[in-house]
Amino acid sequence: MSIEIPRAVRWHGDSVRIIDQTLLPTEYREVDLVQIDDLVEAIRALRVRGAPAIGIAGAMGLVASLKPYLDLSEPELRARLMRHADQLRAARPTGANLKWAVDRVAALATELPAATNVELWRKMRAEATAILEEDREMCRQIGEHGLPLLDQGSTVLTHCNAGALATGGIGTALAPLYLAAERGLRVKIVATETRPLLQGSRLTAWELGRAGLDVTLVADGAAAAAMHRLGVNVVIVGADRIVANGDVANKIGTYALAIAAAHHGIPFYVAAPTSTFDLTLSSGEEIRIEERAAEELSRGFGRQTAPDDVAVFSEAFDVTPARLIAGLITEKGIFRPPYRESLAALSESRKKRGECSE
Amino acid sequence: MSIEIPRAVRWHGDSVRIIDQTLLPTEYREVDLVQIDDLVEAIRALRVRGAPAIGIAGAMGLVASLKPYLDLSEPELRARLMRHADQLRAARPTGANLKWAVDRVAALATELPAATNVELWRKMRAEATAILEEDREMCRQIGEHGLPLLDQGSTVLTHCNAGALATGGIGTALAPLYLAAERGLRVKIVATETRPLLQGSRLTAWELGRAGLDVTLVADGAAAAAMHRLGVNVVIVGADRIVANGDVANKIGTYALAIAAAHHGIPFYVAAPTSTFDLTLSSGEEIRIEERAAEELSRGFGRQTAPDDVAVFSEAFDVTPARLIAGLITEKGIFRPPYRESLAALSESRKKRGECSE
Repeated sequence: MSIEIPRAVRWHGDSVRIIDQTLLPTEYREVDLVQIDDLVEAIRALRVRGAPAIGIAGAMGLVASLKPYLDLSEPELRARLMRHADQLRAARPTGANLKWAVDRVAALATELPAATNVELWRKMRAEATAILEEDREMCRQIGEHGLPLLDQGSTVLTHCNAGALATGGIGTALAPLYLAAERGLRVKIVATETRPLLQGSRLTAWELGRAGLDVTLVADGAAAAAMHRLGVNVVIVGADRIVANGDVANKIGTYALAIAAAHHGIPFYVAAPTSTFDLTLSSGEEIRIEERAAEELSRGFGRQTAPDDVAVFSEAFDVTPARLIAGLITEKGIFRPPYRESLAALSESRKKRGECSE
Repeated sequence: MSIEIPRAVRWHGDSVRIIDQTLLPTEYREVDLVQIDDLVEAIRALRVRGAPAIGIAGAMGLVASLKPYLDLSEPELRARLMRHADQLRAARPTGANLKWAVDRVAALATELPAATNVELWRKMRAEATAILEEDREMCRQIGEHGLPLLDQGSTVLTHCNAGALATGGIGTALAPLYLAAERGLRVKIVATETRPLLQGSRLTAWELGRAGLDVTLVADGAAAAAMHRLGVNVVIVGADRIVANGDVANKIGTYALAIAAAHHGIPFYVAAPTSTFDLTLSSGEEIRIEERAAEELSRGFGRQTAPDDVAVFSEAFDVTPARLIAGLITEKGIFRPPYRESLAALSESRKKRGECSE
C-alpha cells in the first residue's frame, strides 16, 4: 500500500523546498528557498526543524544560495561560500547535525582547489543530495529494524515528533509505523501532545493523520492512563543524544513515559541514527540540559495561562536511564542491554574508520 | 505569620461574593450575586468551581436569591424556593456536593411548615452559613492532619487545584501547605500545569503565589523529571471520589504522578474530606469515567493546536490504585493501608449515624 508521507526537505529544481512547519497543523504551505537570508531565517524560526532535517536544509541551502553567484571570479565565489556556510551554521548554534552537514559540503572547496565554479558547485550539489539520500536510507533502515516489534493491531505510544517532519525521510520513531502501514499491518498510534511546544499535537498527529494512519492524541498527563485504558503494546520515542551507558536524552516528558511503561510492563524503545550516539559521555548525568523560556509555559498559546513572573521548571529534555530502555533501534540494528557492551562495538568500529566518536 | 488566602465563596451582606475564576490568572475580580439566573450562570460557566465551593455557592445562592421575595405570600415563597433549588441543582447535574448542599437548605421548608417567610429565610441563611463554616473547618482539619508530613524545607508536588479556590476554606491538598506557611515552615511547592484545562497554572500557581508561598510551575510531562531534579519529598493531590478499597479517582494525570512517585520512592498522599468516600463501590474499576470534549485538547486556548477532527483520548479523571497511595488525609485523620480495613470503620460509623454511605 502506498501512503503519502510528507517530505520536510527536498529539491525543487535547485531551490530548497520545505514545509513551513510553523503554520501546521492549520495550514500546509511549501516554501522554496534560495536566498541565504531566507534560508537562515527558515532554520532560525523553526520553519524547518528536527536535527536531521535542519542539517539537510543547511547543506542543500548552502548549494542553493550559491547558484546565483557562479559568474563571480573563483576566489570571490569561494569567499562567498565560506560566508554563507558561517551564516548557516550560526542559525542554530547548538545543532550538531547542522554544523556537520554544512561542513561536509563546504569541505569540497578545499578538497577541490582547482575546480571551476561550475564543477565545484555540481560536486557540492551532489554531496548535499547524498546527505539527503543517506538520511532517507537511514530512516528506512530504522523502520526495517523496528518493524518486527509490531504486530497486526499493535498500539504504539510515541512522544514529541520524531517523524518525517524531523528528517529527510520517514522519520526515526515513526519509521516502523510508516513501514507497517505500507505493508498492510494495522497499527494504532497514541501521540502525546508534548508541552510546552506541542510537537505531538501540531506535527505528529498531523503527519500520521495525513498519511492515513490511526492516531489518537492524548495530553501528556494522560499517557499513563492511556497505556492502561487503550492497551498500549510498545512505546517508541526519538532521542537527542544517547551516551555510552545507554542513557538517553530526549524531549522533556520522555522519562515519565519510560517510568509509566515499566510500571505497565510495556517495552520502551528509542529509535535514532547512530549519529545520535555521543560515546564521549559515559552516563546521562554528564549531559548538559538546556532551560527553555518560562513564557513557553505561561503564555504558550498566545494567551496568558499562568500568573505574571511565576517561577517555572522547564528543561528542554530529560534523561531516561538505560535500565528503563528495552532497546535502541538504529539503522544498524537494535542495540540491547547491557549497553556498555553492545555500544562498545560501535565505538571500536568508529575508531577503526577514523570517525570522530561524537 | 498571617497570610492572605483567597476566599472562593463568602457572604457580602446577603449577596454571594465569589472570585470570578474564569478571569484568573490575569484578572482578580470579585462578583456579588443575588439573582437566580446570575447564580446559575456562575456555576455553569465555572466562575465558581471545585465540588465543595460549588455546593456552598448553591446553598448560599438559594438563600440570596430568595431575599427579594420575602414579601410574597408564604405558599408563593415556598414554591419559588423549590423552583430556585431545582435551577441550582441543574446547573451542574453531576455535582454530588451541589445537590447535597442545596437539598440541605431547601429541606428546612418541609422541616418548618409553620414558619413565616422571614423566620424560614433566617434559618436557611444560618444553614448555608453552617455549610460554609463546616467546610472551612474541614479544610483546617485536613491541614492539621497533613502538616506532620512536612518538614522545614520540604518540596511538595501537587496537581490540578485542590486549594482555597475549590473550597470554602484553605483547600484540601493545599491546606497543609497554607498551615505550614502560617507557622513559619518554609516549604516549596511544585504545581503541575494540568492539561487540558490548566487548573494548575491558572489557579494553583496563582493562589499559592498570591499567598506568598514558593511555587514552581511544571508541564505535566516534566513532573517526573522535576521529582528527580528538584528533589520532591512528598506528593499531595485532591480526589473526586475514593472507594472502599482505597482506589482514588482524581483529575487526569494523577495516576502518572503516583507511578512516578513510587518509582522515586516519594510518598504519595491524597487529601479529601470523608464526604468524598463512596463506600458503595468496592474498587476503582467500578467508577464511571467522564469523557471531555476533544476541543479542550485541540483548541484549548483559542487557537487550533491539533489537526481538524483528530481522535482524542481525554478522560476527565483517572483511577490511582490504592497500592500506590501512602495515605488518605481527611478531616478525621490519615487513613493508612490496608484501606479495606481502615475505611471499614468509617463505613460502620456512618451506618450507626444513619448517614447515607454515598
